[in-house]
Amino acid sequence: MSNETGSFAPPGSAAEVEEGRALTPKFDADGLVTCVATDARSGDVLMVAHMNAAALARTIETGEAWYFSRSRRALWRKGETSGHVQRVVEMRIDCDQDAVWIKVEQAGGAACHTGRLSCFYRVVPRGAAGAVTLEFRDAEKLFDPEKVYQNKL
Amino acid sequence: MSNETGSFAPPGSAAEVEEGRALTPKFDADGLVTCVATDARSGDVLMVAHMNAAALARTIETGEAWYFSRSRRALWRKGETSGHVQRVVEMRIDCDQDAVWIKVEQAGGAACHTGRLSCFYRVVPRGAAGAVTLEFRDAEKLFDPEKVYQNKL
Repeated sequence: MSNETGSFAPPGSAAEVEEGRALTPKFDADGLVTCVATDARSGDVLMVAHMNAAALARTIETGEAWYFSRSRRALWRKGETSGHVQRVVEMRIDCDQDAVWIKVEQAGGAACHTGRLSCFYRVVPRGAAGAVTLEFRDAEKLFDPEKVYQNKL
Repeated sequence: MSNETGSFAPPGSAAEVEEGRALTPKFDADGLVTCVATDARSGDVLMVAHMNAAALARTIETGEAWYFSRSRRALWRKGETSGHVQRVVEMRIDCDQDAVWIKVEQAGGAACHTGRLSCFYRVVPRGAAGAVTLEFRDAEKLFDPEKVYQNKL
């Protein structure tokens, strides 16, 4: 079955969505679901991005992560420029079917376009919210984004 | 500094947002950032939800997770009804500052309103996207939502 156009069945009742075995994603007004990618070995969150129906279908069909870039308004195969593809070890969907979680093997060991393993390389310390100073953590750059992307961002 | 109204500084340049130490969240058109909560011990993703400026500020200030319910259009202290609060062990923010990751200690051992540990209790197997059958995994109900919420959902 082709899903280039995202031919998922529409959501049914809350009970069907939450307790059923049918994949009926609840896309938002922009046609997107949220996707969390974690490192299959460490469990660390690598990135949060979005999938439209086509990206979700391709990810399910190919076992590699596809996203939808909100800034570029385009389907985006993760790693298509950098080579840092993500092989999906397991995909899960949440109770109301508007978010997916993929556990991935991250090629190149770096998911973030800044060159880091994870996009989450800064800690927000507890304190007065308007006056916090972020703390860099696990922020080593594993590649040079200027060399990898060469104006392709 | 009070942040009930969410007085975060506005985002600066891409370089400032990505490489700086200032917390300048990029709220979307609805005034929200995405939040991923993982179990601080196991690393499992428990839930994906949203925070407006007030929820983000309260989470940073109190060390307990606050969200914004899109369906109820209301600030929501996680666990306010069920008692299943989330103590934040660490908060991180991503490269473009539109998503946060909190590692939490989950009171009651169940984050999902369906009674389960995690909202992600179904696997999406690889295959033809329109014809997949979800597989329940780690789907044991740890509490009875009808008893816990009693028409409060």
